[in-house]
Amino acid sequence: MPKLILIRHGQSQWNLENRFTGWWDVDVTEKGAAEAWAAGELMKAKGIAPDTCFTSVQTRAIKTLNLALEAMGRLWLPVTKDWHLNERHYGGLTGLDKAETAAKHGDEQVHIWRRSFDIPPPPLEADSPYDLSKDPRYAGIAIPNTESLKDTIARVLPYWEGVIAPELKAGKTVLISAHGNSLRALVKHLSGISDTEITGLEIPTGQPIVYELDDALNATDRYYLSER
Amino acid sequence: MPKLILIRHGQSQWNLENRFTGWWDVDVTEKGAAEAWAAGELMKAKGIAPDTCFTSVQTRAIKTLNLALEAMGRLWLPVTKDWHLNERHYGGLTGLDKAETAAKHGDEQVHIWRRSFDIPPPPLEADSPYDLSKDPRYAGIAIPNTESLKDTIARVLPYWEGVIAPELKAGKTVLISAHGNSLRALVKHLSGISDTEITGLEIPTGQPIVYELDDALNATDRYYLSER
Repeated sequence: MPKLILIRHGQSQWNLENRFTGWWDVDVTEKGAAEAWAAGELMKAKGIAPDTCFTSVQTRAIKTLNLALEAMGRLWLPVTKDWHLNERHYGGLTGLDKAETAAKHGDEQVHIWRRSFDIPPPPLEADSPYDLSKDPRYAGIAIPNTESLKDTIARVLPYWEGVIAPELKAGKTVLISAHGNSLRALVKHLSGISDTEITGLEIPTGQPIVYELDDALNATDRYYLSER
Repeated sequence: MPKLILIRHGQSQWNLENRFTGWWDVDVTEKGAAEAWAAGELMKAKGIAPDTCFTSVQTRAIKTLNLALEAMGRLWLPVTKDWHLNERHYGGLTGLDKAETAAKHGDEQVHIWRRSFDIPPPPLEADSPYDLSKDPRYAGIAIPNTESLKDTIARVLPYWEGVIAPELKAGKTVLISAHGNSLRALVKHLSGISDTEITGLEIPTGQPIVYELDDALNATDRYYLSER
């Protein structure tokens, strides 16, 4: 039966500094790299043998995947990298310290930006140091200038349906390394979580989540691999 | 114009130990990892910007590529991993110390196995500890049990023609991370080197070789990137 493993990238430098990151390309910390390696060792120990892998085009997710694959002895697996699996774009909040932002805009406003389903943060300004329009990895892509969780889901799910789901329907075990919000999109879809509940669902870094699926890709089981 | 960059993996543990390696999956040493990183930094400093990458399915080539891409800030590039780019299969010599093998079989015989164009070493025996028939990365593939350089060329070139050349003809800059003999196959083809000369051509580890190509993929220039 098809099996899906989701892993959120290990701790990044801006996770550590408590800054809004989104599409900005921040590396994992040493702790994050160790989390990724441990995730790979756990998958190997539990007999998880992916056939193919997907990741965003962001360094923290790619490195998490590469480290986990190396720890599993499966660095040779095919890996598809695609921006549709990127983190939610945090718009004008990108780069800001979360505490400073709360002091400036008020806790309530920041809570809305972080936790509402369909209200995006203010857009990234064109002259922002976090502008990505010259980044060659996004050449030819209409880069968003902000996203709500709803917007994120709206670009993750077509990619899921069009590219990832067919691999699972072919009976493959698929490993996805991605981000808090792109993984929320998948978990919401697979576990049928409501719009209001999904915004509060925390996906821990470096913890493989396993979905057992039936042939129609309905979830028959979901668990943290560390708990089985 | 199309541009091709070839890189032989950084020093492996068995390069260091002077053992025949072939298809056995040996990791890079710390020195090899440093060579890979330096190759990436050199490419970045020289303005080499690959659009897509190829590697074998062997850890030492994949890690070399990943480290070089990370050093270049291009870990997001597409990477295709394929066994056709693997090292020459060293048959029954796999795992043997080169000096011990020379002491046992004589320098002349070892020289023939290492340097003849079309004489393969004796085949790997079925009960060898280096048998790869259970390795999942080769599921469905007719794994050779030994190869001459001629045999290696015979599986590298169709892959070049069918998969890599079309990317170059589309105007892309292509980076290939591979092995001494799979790269000899490409250099022989692109530079028109004779059967007798190619066996003596040494490709150094971790040194990017650049081919400038015309639209028909004829080489107009070839150089070590470190020398320009």
